[in-house]
Amino acid sequence: MENKKRTDIIPRFGVPGNRREDVAERRRWVEEKTGARFEHVGHFSIDPEKTTHNVENMIGVCQMPIGVAGPLLIDGDHARGEFYVPLATTEGALVRSFERGMIAITKSGGAHVKVLADHTHISPLFQLTSLAESAAFAAWVKENTDRVRAEAESTTRHGKLLGIKPFLFGRSVVLQFDYSTGDAMGLNMITVATDKACRFIVGERKVQRWIIESNLSSEKKVSAFNLIEGKGKEVVAEATLSKELVRRNLHTTPRDMVDTVAIMRVGAAKAGMPAPNAHLANGLTALFMACGQDVASVVNCSAGFTQMEVDANGDLYLWVSLPSLILGTVGGGTGLGSHRECLEMIGCYGEGKAKKLAEIAAAMALAGEISITAAIVSSEFAQAHDQLGRNRPS
Amino acid sequence: MENKKRTDIIPRFGVPGNRREDVAERRRWVEEKTGARFEHVGHFSIDPEKTTHNVENMIGVCQMPIGVAGPLLIDGDHARGEFYVPLATTEGALVRSFERGMIAITKSGGAHVKVLADHTHISPLFQLTSLAESAAFAAWVKENTDRVRAEAESTTRHGKLLGIKPFLFGRSVVLQFDYSTGDAMGLNMITVATDKACRFIVGERKVQRWIIESNLSSEKKVSAFNLIEGKGKEVVAEATLSKELVRRNLHTTPRDMVDTVAIMRVGAAKAGMPAPNAHLANGLTALFMACGQDVASVVNCSAGFTQMEVDANGDLYLWVSLPSLILGTVGGGTGLGSHRECLEMIGCYGEGKAKKLAEIAAAMALAGEISITAAIVSSEFAQAHDQLGRNRPS
Amino acid sequence: MENKKRTDIIPRFGVPGNRREDVAERRRWVEEKTGARFEHVGHFSIDPEKTTHNVENMIGVCQMPIGVAGPLLIDGDHARGEFYVPLATTEGALVRSFERGMIAITKSGGAHVKVLADHTHISPLFQLTSLAESAAFAAWVKENTDRVRAEAESTTRHGKLLGIKPFLFGRSVVLQFDYSTGDAMGLNMITVATDKACRFIVGERKVQRWIIESNLSSEKKVSAFNLIEGKGKEVVAEATLSKELVRRNLHTTPRDMVDTVAIMRVGAAKAGMPAPNAHLANGLTALFMACGQDVASVVNCSAGFTQMEVDANGDLYLWVSLPSLILGTVGGGTGLGSHRECLEMIGCYGEGKAKKLAEIAAAMALAGEISITAAIVSSEFAQAHDQLGRNRPS
Amino acid sequence: MENKKRTDIIPRFGVPGNRREDVAERRRWVEEKTGARFEHVGHFSIDPEKTTHNVENMIGVCQMPIGVAGPLLIDGDHARGEFYVPLATTEGALVRSFERGMIAITKSGGAHVKVLADHTHISPLFQLTSLAESAAFAAWVKENTDRVRAEAESTTRHGKLLGIKPFLFGRSVVLQFDYSTGDAMGLNMITVATDKACRFIVGERKVQRWIIESNLSSEKKVSAFNLIEGKGKEVVAEATLSKELVRRNLHTTPRDMVDTVAIMRVGAAKAGMPAPNAHLANGLTALFMACGQDVASVVNCSAGFTQMEVDANGDLYLWVSLPSLILGTVGGGTGLGSHRECLEMIGCYGEGKAKKLAEIAAAMALAGEISITAAIVSSEFAQAHDQLGRNRPS
Repeated sequence: MENKKRTDIIPRFGVPGNRREDVAERRRWVEEKTGARFEHVGHFSIDPEKTTHNVENMIGVCQMPIGVAGPLLIDGDHARGEFYVPLATTEGALVRSFERGMIAITKSGGAHVKVLADHTHISPLFQLTSLAESAAFAAWVKENTDRVRAEAESTTRHGKLLGIKPFLFGRSVVLQFDYSTGDAMGLNMITVATDKACRFIVGERKVQRWIIESNLSSEKKVSAFNLIEGKGKEVVAEATLSKELVRRNLHTTPRDMVDTVAIMRVGAAKAGMPAPNAHLANGLTALFMACGQDVASVVNCSAGFTQMEVDANGDLYLWVSLPSLILGTVGGGTGLGSHRECLEMIGCYGEGKAKKLAEIAAAMALAGEISITAAIVSSEFAQAHDQLGRNRPS
Repeated sequence: MENKKRTDIIPRFGVPGNRREDVAERRRWVEEKTGARFEHVGHFSIDPEKTTHNVENMIGVCQMPIGVAGPLLIDGDHARGEFYVPLATTEGALVRSFERGMIAITKSGGAHVKVLADHTHISPLFQLTSLAESAAFAAWVKENTDRVRAEAESTTRHGKLLGIKPFLFGRSVVLQFDYSTGDAMGLNMITVATDKACRFIVGERKVQRWIIESNLSSEKKVSAFNLIEGKGKEVVAEATLSKELVRRNLHTTPRDMVDTVAIMRVGAAKAGMPAPNAHLANGLTALFMACGQDVASVVNCSAGFTQMEVDANGDLYLWVSLPSLILGTVGGGTGLGSHRECLEMIGCYGEGKAKKLAEIAAAMALAGEISITAAIVSSEFAQAHDQLGRNRPS
Repeated sequence: MENKKRTDIIPRFGVPGNRREDVAERRRWVEEKTGARFEHVGHFSIDPEKTTHNVENMIGVCQMPIGVAGPLLIDGDHARGEFYVPLATTEGALVRSFERGMIAITKSGGAHVKVLADHTHISPLFQLTSLAESAAFAAWVKENTDRVRAEAESTTRHGKLLGIKPFLFGRSVVLQFDYSTGDAMGLNMITVATDKACRFIVGERKVQRWIIESNLSSEKKVSAFNLIEGKGKEVVAEATLSKELVRRNLHTTPRDMVDTVAIMRVGAAKAGMPAPNAHLANGLTALFMACGQDVASVVNCSAGFTQMEVDANGDLYLWVSLPSLILGTVGGGTGLGSHRECLEMIGCYGEGKAKKLAEIAAAMALAGEISITAAIVSSEFAQAHDQLGRNRPS
Repeated sequence: MENKKRTDIIPRFGVPGNRREDVAERRRWVEEKTGARFEHVGHFSIDPEKTTHNVENMIGVCQMPIGVAGPLLIDGDHARGEFYVPLATTEGALVRSFERGMIAITKSGGAHVKVLADHTHISPLFQLTSLAESAAFAAWVKENTDRVRAEAESTTRHGKLLGIKPFLFGRSVVLQFDYSTGDAMGLNMITVATDKACRFIVGERKVQRWIIESNLSSEKKVSAFNLIEGKGKEVVAEATLSKELVRRNLHTTPRDMVDTVAIMRVGAAKAGMPAPNAHLANGLTALFMACGQDVASVVNCSAGFTQMEVDANGDLYLWVSLPSLILGTVGGGTGLGSHRECLEMIGCYGEGKAKKLAEIAAAMALAGEISITAAIVSSEFAQAHDQLGRNRPS
């Protein structure tokens, strides 16, 4: 496979898209090039032609195991009732750990969840020739926001431009374009809309150069900006677990849980960790993979806060805050066979379901924090990994 | 599905594990509970019984499309030659974008890659009763490192304890246990080994309490600690693209690329982004999903740095640094059907291949940084998303 | 002096305040206790009785040397013309270094400076009993902002409450109270005003507990919040230095300056430095000490950004952004003898001068960044320190 | 004063240095230029000629009030006994607040303090032409560390090179030179030594360019690097306050103090604050100004952690960690009249005293954290500021 003499370009065939026969042909081509044999990659039931806007150069699928965890009782504004949550993973103990946390929540009357905000943004940069000019440019944008909005919204039915906030970087200006994107995750939508708006702006105002993204909006990176300003859904979930339940189900006490979170926060601070939590990434990744979300977004989606407190009567009160939850129930991977089925399993496929999905994600994340923190406190963490994940080499 | 009156526990059947009939039975049970219909989730060719240590409560699989990108010419210490890289994704334009960057690298003579370090760590905390005691505890651990190492290594064939570094938190001590883990990702391995070592320590020294993880090691979270100390493989990849190639293939110039990275770094700084890069998460997520890696680890794996410079003769020199690349070629999901096939496609399945996989990951990440930065500079970013990702609602 | 047997309380005398005889008496008392001899501490011309609200337990003064640097040509909205800037320091080379940068700016036509924002904040926290309650509490505050404002503003003639922004932390709510504070630094003013407002709020709404500061406002600490939201004056200063001047006065080239800033930004990112700059702290500390500012505020005031670019015609364009400049020209130490004289030296004593002081501070900071960066690039940094700071032990 | 037509350079007179008559002459020159009248700036007893290496262009002094706080009982390895601490400030309430905390500590048996580490560093960068070369360069430095050390140490009597740690930035290499600097603060010393070493290195190895500082060492900036690696003295101070004392002296309870610190840590995390504490900067600034330290260093010196816990018997246990305390008792401003007297007041002037000063600084910082946190918890914070700091405009 290695040290080839000449470069071969992957075949694209006659028409764009992933026709079944082209996928098969391409798979054979790769087999020949690399020596791999695609028994499982080539085994799928989804219609490849429907993946045209999901993937290029398709050769097949990856079969990622899905486990189910629940029941998870949620009392949200959009998600209400008991849910069984699909989690795609290859990491032993993950599903069992979340299940334990979900049952603890459910037995305690459920998780209360709220979507506090819902907007997303992109931050193009415009370079002018002086600070005076950049200040004038920012003022012009403010005065002409309606015209800029008309341009941006001309590209989209669902996206609404909520506002434009300028940040002056010397003679450059960053404009944070902030949108609501309906039930779509929206990154594509706001990119196209903002591109249109920027081309309008640079037609009206002379600029040296412009770029569609300054990194202020921190797409798929962790940043304080997104923790503070929010990006996507900002969701908070809380639960109260009685001290009896903490003892019986989690083998520890509220006070020990709280003290552990407190000292782990020092560890997090010493580490320079912007978003102190236990393992928000684990559950969100598994849910995102199952439900056709943009899994790379977990990087910022999992940047959240977990806090625990002992209640007046000695019970355990806890909450998680996810300020930057980027997800959707239409578009992207949501319509592909197994992804759609997973969304349907939690009643979250299609229009009007994105906030419900956000609430389920937050409640699930809360369950994960409960379970792992209890395992750490009660010294059962290593055993769980030893028993459930032992296909690893030791 | 919602507002159920009573809580039903997911059936576990007689024996632990994912027997084919139990998976089918459980799937039916969930269908009944939730109203979902699992046509695609239930369609798979992998052997569910082999997933026993990968997932609990299995109901089937998620079929995630895989595209292939390449050729990617790599000149590493472990990966050498041209590679065709499997990328699992539902995000249109991703594969094409990485392909473009890979071809640019390959035409330029390839990416040079080095694994600079290879170790991983976990950081238990021990609470004593005073600062004097915690200093004495740290000194004792230093003197008894060999005994502690013997305990830790008694649990593993492949893990080696490289050292123990103490951090005093007042009357508590955090011990950073640092290991080499061979070709395994190793989180499980070092957890079990460190648990054993900790139980030995608390048998020898009186402590108030201890926990297996203080969050200093920042598992699946972004932290400065892991960016500085490294965790997993620390890999650097570089390439030099001629100004002609930058113009022809990427439709811009080295100077414009460099200036854009420079101003985006201001955006990143303003945002409070610990690891400024363009979109390292996208490629790593797609590779990790295809290759049976622990996908949630992308949170810290993608925390890396990208830098571009104009060379003496006007060409584009660039590099990425990934200080915290957690991956493996044995254990975890690596042996499952399609994951194994994807690893084999790049010659990375099994023993002795982890550093090779790390080098391929870094070279691929470099390709992604080239392509997206060029698209931003040349104002083609939005068009690419519009054309290739348009199944999204607009 | 050490190992005393009994504890002696520092004498407070009959009346509060720093009467000259009490200061002398206390000084003698401390001399007796500690064995120190206060020849210089007791030598001062300022009126101690006027320090009653500046210091308790006064024993005298510290005589900190003041050097002058300039001329610094500024083209701001408030500061216009050439300035000679007082810098209090004991660090050799500091004044000379800033002087060099100032002259470079002045020869280049001056620094252009703008105050982009002017507000400061404090962030009390209120604990309720549930997420639902905290959401209701936040809504109530929004509806009753006018009543809350009336309470806050009843304590102050100069402070104006610009707004209240809620942040939900589970069942707790943080309210960011944002004020304009006229020409006062304002921390005292907003603390007293917010305390009044909070007492009003908790009289109207039942809360479990409240505290005046949640740390969100990051008083005297570096935080992304203040870099993003701003605190105090947000000021930007820019200058353009011709390539000839860079060569002649700074012994380097614009391109080398820019490349050095670019690579130092990687160093800053690797270090986990929230606010990458060269040495903004040095000049601000010296100016703050000379001018009676709250010197501890330099911690957040110096958290700013420096960026350099090569202009279209090869000259050096550069700017600094100081998003969190906390300073005042009335109150605090501004009225004390030598501090007042230093403020008068730059025309910044009293009402209506705070923004002017902010502009001078930013232009001065810009000068410092020029000089040190040039010294680093031209390898003259060590020599300057060796020649001008050599009273240190080597 | 403003809008001058021509630029006048500050007179330097015949010989370098601050002869008394030159200082007076320069003061008159500035008076003429600016219209200021220097009654107090010109009133000083220190010998200006001794400030030659402390300040250029001297015109006089700033008279900063000094208050004394104590007694502070310390049980350290270097500081032992009761201390009365000089604090230079113009901020009302500061001295009284620290005094309250000190008395609480003293009545509780004192603060236990340890200097855990003592070293400082600077991080030059060397640019090579490829990753392969930078790896070879780093290897060469490792092999030739003794030769490099000989060069570095040839410039200093007190500095010892502890080690050199390479960080690869693509084709560039950052070398962290780590030194012990005796009782000097050492920044000057290590700059000169490292400059010598770098010149030796580039004589032996061909490099494209090099700079003395890459910003990794984060001089006078907050960074995770210095919080993790330490810079200067790393000091920890602890104390235990009985619940009775907390109630009587601080008007609150240990549990309320601890809960407040816990929730403020969430505020700090949300704010993106790298070093969560209450107001470490206040005390350190006042001590540094009194004692002739490099006050701008407070930016990184005050980046520390404060933690509080309820003890087994209900008392308050607390500690502060200062990982980056840069101070000295020889050189710099330590020998100037009033600064020297302040150092003598705490027995910290001259050789062999730097660790003692570090311990006193940490114990004092602990006192400040106690006092302000109690004031926040007991809602007395605003009143204290209202009563003691009311010379500010309201």
